[in-house]
Amino acid sequence: MEIILHPIGTIHTPFKKGDAMPVQSVEGRDIEGYIELLPEYVDGLNDLDGFSHIILIFHLHLNEKVKMQTRPFMDNVYRGIFATRSPSRPNHLGLSIVRLDRVEGNRVYIRDMDMIDGTPLLDIKPYVKVIREEDEIKQGWFEPYKNRKHKTWHEASKDKA
Amino acid sequence: MEIILHPIGTIHTPFKKGDAMPVQSVEGRDIEGYIELLPEYVDGLNDLDGFSHIILIFHLHLNEKVKMQTRPFMDNVYRGIFATRSPSRPNHLGLSIVRLDRVEGNRVYIRDMDMIDGTPLLDIKPYVKVIREEDEIKQGWFEPYKNRKHKTWHEASKDKA
Repeated sequence: MEIILHPIGTIHTPFKKGDAMPVQSVEGRDIEGYIELLPEYVDGLNDLDGFSHIILIFHLHLNEKVKMQTRPFMDNVYRGIFATRSPSRPNHLGLSIVRLDRVEGNRVYIRDMDMIDGTPLLDIKPYVKVIREEDEIKQGWFEPYKNRKHKTWHEASKDKA
Repeated sequence: MEIILHPIGTIHTPFKKGDAMPVQSVEGRDIEGYIELLPEYVDGLNDLDGFSHIILIFHLHLNEKVKMQTRPFMDNVYRGIFATRSPSRPNHLGLSIVRLDRVEGNRVYIRDMDMIDGTPLLDIKPYVKVIREEDEIKQGWFEPYKNRKHKTWHEASKDKA
């Protein structure tokens, strides 16, 4: 079965190449960017500005490889692809939760960017809290890395060299 | 530009029809289901079981409409589609954060289901905390509804009748 998608717009960020890009949006803290939405979808942005955080689903368009095991940038062990955010995943879908600054016409100004300039955007969703406060959050292999400082893909690659 | 995706598996839930389905995964609290992954992707599940929560991206395959304004099920006001989780969105991508019970072969047992049985799965991602504790989360039009009780689509539709 084939599912055919069309970009609804483009994500603009300061990252022209993957090298300088943060590995996670928490590491892209405060880095500003914007969405340029196709004109036919502008009315769909109504009410979005009430939300402090939004979820972007985008196409990891520079990556054509599909691997089942990958070594995450901050880690030295091969992990199952679905336990990582690696772009070498089936369908090459990317997801980031970013902070919303403001909506102006067909532009959505956001911060906490961790994707490359020109990334095709597939969807925008409002972020609502779904995890209950009484629920423990376990983050598997990622746990030791959760408080690490800002690191770009380039820096992380050097660490492993 | 066309982006062609292929399902990586199928999501199985107790909901055979949309009517009985919870509107959000918090409202599907504890409802159990499972992912049946295609065999070629099973190795990609390694390390996933360390995570308590996972993010599913799926195809809202029963919906072909695309609207820019929609009236959310718990609300009586038309909202921009991107400020809602309505299935009538461009690209018909669905997203849910669910709790992971266990992985057995090509089956991933999960709970907090809010999607219909047979939904084509497009991606699995680990849930990691990305929102800082000092950041205020504003949930726009959804704010008054965030503590409401379990409600199915059917019940919510009746409320509006």
